[in-house]
Amino acid sequence: MADTDRMTLKDPVFGDIAPIKFEGPDSENLLAYRYYNKDQMVLGKRMEDHLRMAVCYWHTFCWDGFDIFGAGTFDRPWQNPANDRSAADAKMAAAFEFFTKLGLPYYCFHDVDVPEASTTPDELSNNFKRASDRLGTYQEETGVKLLWGTANLFSHPRYAAGGLTNPDPEVAACAVRQIRDCLEATHRLGGENYVLWGGREGYDTLLNTDLTRELENFGRFLSMVVEHKHKIGFKGKILIEPKPHEPMYHQYDFDTATIYGFLSRFGLLGEVHVNIEPNHATLSGHSFAHEVATAVSLDMMGSIDINSGNYQNGWDTDQFNLDVRDITLALVELLPSGGLDTGGFNFDAKVRRQSNDLSDLFHGHIGGADALARALLAAADLIERGEIKDLKEKRYSGWNGALGKKMLSDGASLASIADQAASESLNGKHSSGRQEYLENLVARSIK
Amino acid sequence: MADTDRMTLKDPVFGDIAPIKFEGPDSENLLAYRYYNKDQMVLGKRMEDHLRMAVCYWHTFCWDGFDIFGAGTFDRPWQNPANDRSAADAKMAAAFEFFTKLGLPYYCFHDVDVPEASTTPDELSNNFKRASDRLGTYQEETGVKLLWGTANLFSHPRYAAGGLTNPDPEVAACAVRQIRDCLEATHRLGGENYVLWGGREGYDTLLNTDLTRELENFGRFLSMVVEHKHKIGFKGKILIEPKPHEPMYHQYDFDTATIYGFLSRFGLLGEVHVNIEPNHATLSGHSFAHEVATAVSLDMMGSIDINSGNYQNGWDTDQFNLDVRDITLALVELLPSGGLDTGGFNFDAKVRRQSNDLSDLFHGHIGGADALARALLAAADLIERGEIKDLKEKRYSGWNGALGKKMLSDGASLASIADQAASESLNGKHSSGRQEYLENLVARSIK
Amino acid sequence: MADTDRMTLKDPVFGDIAPIKFEGPDSENLLAYRYYNKDQMVLGKRMEDHLRMAVCYWHTFCWDGFDIFGAGTFDRPWQNPANDRSAADAKMAAAFEFFTKLGLPYYCFHDVDVPEASTTPDELSNNFKRASDRLGTYQEETGVKLLWGTANLFSHPRYAAGGLTNPDPEVAACAVRQIRDCLEATHRLGGENYVLWGGREGYDTLLNTDLTRELENFGRFLSMVVEHKHKIGFKGKILIEPKPHEPMYHQYDFDTATIYGFLSRFGLLGEVHVNIEPNHATLSGHSFAHEVATAVSLDMMGSIDINSGNYQNGWDTDQFNLDVRDITLALVELLPSGGLDTGGFNFDAKVRRQSNDLSDLFHGHIGGADALARALLAAADLIERGEIKDLKEKRYSGWNGALGKKMLSDGASLASIADQAASESLNGKHSSGRQEYLENLVARSIK
Amino acid sequence: MADTDRMTLKDPVFGDIAPIKFEGPDSENLLAYRYYNKDQMVLGKRMEDHLRMAVCYWHTFCWDGFDIFGAGTFDRPWQNPANDRSAADAKMAAAFEFFTKLGLPYYCFHDVDVPEASTTPDELSNNFKRASDRLGTYQEETGVKLLWGTANLFSHPRYAAGGLTNPDPEVAACAVRQIRDCLEATHRLGGENYVLWGGREGYDTLLNTDLTRELENFGRFLSMVVEHKHKIGFKGKILIEPKPHEPMYHQYDFDTATIYGFLSRFGLLGEVHVNIEPNHATLSGHSFAHEVATAVSLDMMGSIDINSGNYQNGWDTDQFNLDVRDITLALVELLPSGGLDTGGFNFDAKVRRQSNDLSDLFHGHIGGADALARALLAAADLIERGEIKDLKEKRYSGWNGALGKKMLSDGASLASIADQAASESLNGKHSSGRQEYLENLVARSIK
Repeated sequence: MADTDRMTLKDPVFGDIAPIKFEGPDSENLLAYRYYNKDQMVLGKRMEDHLRMAVCYWHTFCWDGFDIFGAGTFDRPWQNPANDRSAADAKMAAAFEFFTKLGLPYYCFHDVDVPEASTTPDELSNNFKRASDRLGTYQEETGVKLLWGTANLFSHPRYAAGGLTNPDPEVAACAVRQIRDCLEATHRLGGENYVLWGGREGYDTLLNTDLTRELENFGRFLSMVVEHKHKIGFKGKILIEPKPHEPMYHQYDFDTATIYGFLSRFGLLGEVHVNIEPNHATLSGHSFAHEVATAVSLDMMGSIDINSGNYQNGWDTDQFNLDVRDITLALVELLPSGGLDTGGFNFDAKVRRQSNDLSDLFHGHIGGADALARALLAAADLIERGEIKDLKEKRYSGWNGALGKKMLSDGASLASIADQAASESLNGKHSSGRQEYLENLVARSIK
Repeated sequence: MADTDRMTLKDPVFGDIAPIKFEGPDSENLLAYRYYNKDQMVLGKRMEDHLRMAVCYWHTFCWDGFDIFGAGTFDRPWQNPANDRSAADAKMAAAFEFFTKLGLPYYCFHDVDVPEASTTPDELSNNFKRASDRLGTYQEETGVKLLWGTANLFSHPRYAAGGLTNPDPEVAACAVRQIRDCLEATHRLGGENYVLWGGREGYDTLLNTDLTRELENFGRFLSMVVEHKHKIGFKGKILIEPKPHEPMYHQYDFDTATIYGFLSRFGLLGEVHVNIEPNHATLSGHSFAHEVATAVSLDMMGSIDINSGNYQNGWDTDQFNLDVRDITLALVELLPSGGLDTGGFNFDAKVRRQSNDLSDLFHGHIGGADALARALLAAADLIERGEIKDLKEKRYSGWNGALGKKMLSDGASLASIADQAASESLNGKHSSGRQEYLENLVARSIK
Repeated sequence: MADTDRMTLKDPVFGDIAPIKFEGPDSENLLAYRYYNKDQMVLGKRMEDHLRMAVCYWHTFCWDGFDIFGAGTFDRPWQNPANDRSAADAKMAAAFEFFTKLGLPYYCFHDVDVPEASTTPDELSNNFKRASDRLGTYQEETGVKLLWGTANLFSHPRYAAGGLTNPDPEVAACAVRQIRDCLEATHRLGGENYVLWGGREGYDTLLNTDLTRELENFGRFLSMVVEHKHKIGFKGKILIEPKPHEPMYHQYDFDTATIYGFLSRFGLLGEVHVNIEPNHATLSGHSFAHEVATAVSLDMMGSIDINSGNYQNGWDTDQFNLDVRDITLALVELLPSGGLDTGGFNFDAKVRRQSNDLSDLFHGHIGGADALARALLAAADLIERGEIKDLKEKRYSGWNGALGKKMLSDGASLASIADQAASESLNGKHSSGRQEYLENLVARSIK
Repeated sequence: MADTDRMTLKDPVFGDIAPIKFEGPDSENLLAYRYYNKDQMVLGKRMEDHLRMAVCYWHTFCWDGFDIFGAGTFDRPWQNPANDRSAADAKMAAAFEFFTKLGLPYYCFHDVDVPEASTTPDELSNNFKRASDRLGTYQEETGVKLLWGTANLFSHPRYAAGGLTNPDPEVAACAVRQIRDCLEATHRLGGENYVLWGGREGYDTLLNTDLTRELENFGRFLSMVVEHKHKIGFKGKILIEPKPHEPMYHQYDFDTATIYGFLSRFGLLGEVHVNIEPNHATLSGHSFAHEVATAVSLDMMGSIDINSGNYQNGWDTDQFNLDVRDITLALVELLPSGGLDTGGFNFDAKVRRQSNDLSDLFHGHIGGADALARALLAAADLIERGEIKDLKEKRYSGWNGALGKKMLSDGASLASIADQAASESLNGKHSSGRQEYLENLVARSIK
């Protein structure tokens, strides 16, 4: 078949760039990994298996560099303005060439990222079917795997007021159809998770919004997604991605704690997990580590869209995350729980709009991969040394003592505890939290 | 008894200020209400009964004007640095003189606000007992009622790492004792609610924090508070107050949605409600109206600490809220649900540190009360006209049609909806959300 | 000529909307002004002459509703994807129909807003020449005037790293050419100001930026703009528009105070003024009133792009500003200085992406105009009553006394003042700033 | 003299902590420096001479751990609530013991930090005289030097509305007296700079503020400070410290660019420089590197108060800065200009309120010193390799070519450049800014 003929990588787009190899911290080659050594054992597991890194389709292959103030700057060889079938096919060839050269095991996509532009839902359905079959062939040829797929329910004008939470059931039905198609394609392609990012599930003004109804519809349709997943035998996780604002004034999936409450309300705990993104975490007033710790504590951890924002800019800048300390703090929360299961670290990051060289795409991903690997080594060192764990155990040890146990025992009540405090004239004192010492431990372990 | 002798208002502190009366919008008297006309009927209820306004003890009577960069500026006649018994008694006399002159029906307090300074938990318990008895006498004398009481579990050094979530059970036991004492005093005083603000329930760094254990302890002790409330026959609501940050880096009661999840997890939905504060709402990335709408939607609405912040300052400035439009938007969410039940609007607001005239305290509260009243009139007008409600009903009307009903019917599934969308080639379109029109309606109703 | 034939408003786009009239606060007609009564005298001047309102071309006629997460939603009758000549002409007809129906005296444009799409600088120059001639004809026909023009130096990919501050002189030369053409066109069209918004004059990372050189080039080219203005006899003001971030990580024209320093450095004080925007003010950590007060104090006041942002969203949302109190505070700073001279209030505001009805454009502008007018009435009331002025004079009156005069006299020195303070044991006290009282005055004057 | 007897360090407060030594990156001793090796040569200078580190008196010795929500937690052996003379003397002994044990060369103070509490300006003047003499003796005994002194014009209630910008000249005269005394003491003590932090030079509301007058007074008095400095022969730099907000709503010394304009306006460029603080930089919407680059570019660089904030908290948290990457980016801007001259890196940082162990003070400073040293090594590596400089030179090389030179030549004008652009059909293109590559260079140099 003509189509698959074009899929062999005979006309490489990134021809002048050799596959990226691990060369160690002292390498002078900036097109090599200095820390990401996939077979290196860390805490008993291969580095690749810890990090399960993925490249995303949209930022790297679909985005042309436009922003709200200006037109695209990239002029990629695989793009054309019409995004016709030949462009879509060229894009896919370039994507798999890139995945392969980077040597990362996974990729992620939105349904609309992969086929040519479509005019109607019917067209999209057909085009996506063809395109996702091609993805399967590429996967087979290259060994690259699908971390997750997702349906884009925010870019088409029909979704201006939301997808699953749209005021108009006809729009919501279109959304459901896209999800069904994309979830099934993800299943066929061996995808290990399925993600919902509710970019327009939220509101611009409460004055036109029936909050209660929108959330109930969202809960209802999400239950159907879970039900369908089981029906088709999809073993991966269903993930919701927290984000507080942008594009909407308020987004329902504000942060992990909000999603916990939502899932609890609709009986979906254990069925749906979160896809955490550092840039979204900071936009919601949290650290990356906080979101991870919350997800771990509430047994909601799914996957991570690894990136970062500019702290001085109040929108999603989706930069490659080079903040090794920040990632280390998150991994210290993540790894003791067993780490990522079906999840991975997806580079939901884009080169800057000014970075229009093809090589910039490699530098972005290499820097991101090395920062992750370096943070993994630091976090493992902290965990192996055990000082943080020991200090925490000591700090809370009173709860294993007589008073602590009694306070939490079955018969305890407000009155019984208060009476004991009064009769024994309890007069608790503060002792140091050792924050500076602990932060220095982290600095020490970053090599 | 000597003590109660001093309670008669014979030596008024605010002697040169006459009781504040309603004089209407055209009054030139700045020590009069221009909108707050307590007996005026609005949506079938007296204005006083809608708003149930309260004065807080702490900002107005305890705070001396200090901030993190400088010493107190107020030099109030009832304050002395030692905060001894005579000062505490003078403060109480001044407070009830103030409540009475303002003519507002309620007040609120922390346990430590009312008695003299205490050295130990035993002393505090005793001093608070005496002081709360005096509050009862004042209430009887003046007719002023208690909207809510709360135990301060954040100011004493022992609470540096939290009260109910402290790593040390001895500290937590002290916290429990304060809550028991304060809840019972609130009950004796006819208080209509009991509040928990978890100012130090949170963390400064995850490195020394066992998030899971702290939240479990918090849930366990909160359950005991609820159990005790029922045991003693307290009919008021137990309220948690959302705040995202400050003083801690992260606070567990981040916002209303977070608290919903927490209550759900510990089986406390319906037993615990929220005390929403606009300045906390904005610090957490929400509008005041959003927090109210969320609480109403989740059946968690308790009470409101009415104030506002400077949007350019990233900490709690606790100013009197004069933003009539912003309050109107919140009331439009609140009133259709029946409004506040046992809750009220508590002025958790302070005059600026530079405002060291006693009259400034009156101007602050009068401005705040009038803004509330003006917003109430605007919100009532919007509700009576019905345009917002009508527009919403029309916007979501598709869910009452054939497609909408089918999508939400019992047998519906992802597949059934997707199949229908495909077979009928559904192609939903966006229609205008009419935001500008709606915002103009709000502007129109503010008279 | 065929082209001008099409300019008569015989096929109105907004045919079902009648010209907007003033009907007073009690009007039930939402397509009428309730406060904007152009001939009403306020502080000795017609309301229209105070406010000098303008409609902007870009948000209302060029933007198709796209955002960074989704495609255009508006589908305006005058737009087509190619933006060919017929579309540009239809857009111009629609724009002048709209200006005329609103009854506002001014409009504003970027060079690229008015002609069809151009491929090269030469084409742009020619197309803009034709289009600006047509603008002149429309102005003559309708009486609508040009408040200001500006060259768009940020949307074309060549400007990704800046216009006048671009690292590449060839790009800067293209920018200079656009400015020359647009400044001359503005002059021909009787424009009353010429604006530079440095959307890409700034940086994404210092690592690739020669800050010193870029600012020197900016200063040099700005001097040339001023020189050219004088050469061609343009009597309007040259204006720079402060904005702190977005699209760049950092923008050189951060705020009014920054621009003051920049103009001072390059000898341009008095020659260049500022075009202040409330949404930019708040993004830079200032209130709208602060930016106005700073500009007035430094004699830099030029014009105002009136809009507002969502305080919870960290990007430029460019909404119609309905915050009457906030605008009043700005006008209280502006009016005593004589108000706007050649400047005006330009609605640099857009309807929400969901607002795809043509009538939404009217509601947005009507709401914005009424908020301005209502604020003008409030500010005038405050100024006429004089209480704020009186309080300020009293507060600073010490500087007219013996001590104050001596401290500021010619011979005064650190030592002479310190010696006097010591010898007289000066021990200054704080007195109240009356903030709550003053804020209540403002609330009172908003009717 | 009895007083000086007490000054010998015979009763050390930090007795169980040995002097802190450099032990190298592999040391397991957390009370040792791992990177700060004072005699190590870096870019031709000793590390100690590059960094010129100072300990501040206030956070470490005066602050008792109070915050706006709670009382002091530290209970330091040298503190008592009255802050009487014996406490002040004990504090000084502890301070110099600490400076000496850390082995850092400098310290900094506010006038009110060192003596006992004073009731009147006269008392303060006398007490400060005695205390500053004692500082001199300690300096001599220990070899510790004074980086800078400053007068505290924000903590006393009289300064609620400002010091030099106070509406009341009597208050301003008190401020002038404190500055005179403190500047002269700084001079006597061999201080290398004198700092003004305008903590209350700003406003809470414009409604009571005469912006123009306050800034003119500020300019006038600052000129007197400069004049006095020269009169007494003080060779150090006068420094202003930028901060945008807190404690005031708005502070006049918002950021470095604002201060540039202010100094320019009052003819003080070259006479006054800036004391930059990372936590203030980020509160004003800038990176630390931005503020440094701006100061270097405008020839205003003075000194640095090294610390950092929590990006999720909107107030000054003054933490020890462990963000090596962020400091490296600032040093890359600073070092090529020759680095700090009379300035240094002052640890304007405090241990967390929970960190009430005396050892926490050491961990805080050691972590901060090591982060600085590690960043210095990284920045030096980047500078020595030269890739960043080379890339910048290449990027701007067009300005050395024919077109660039002509555009900036004396005869060039808007018209001449535009004409050339037109006649040559110039059509500039964007080329990559290589941001990802450059950021990876930085990551590589952090060892």
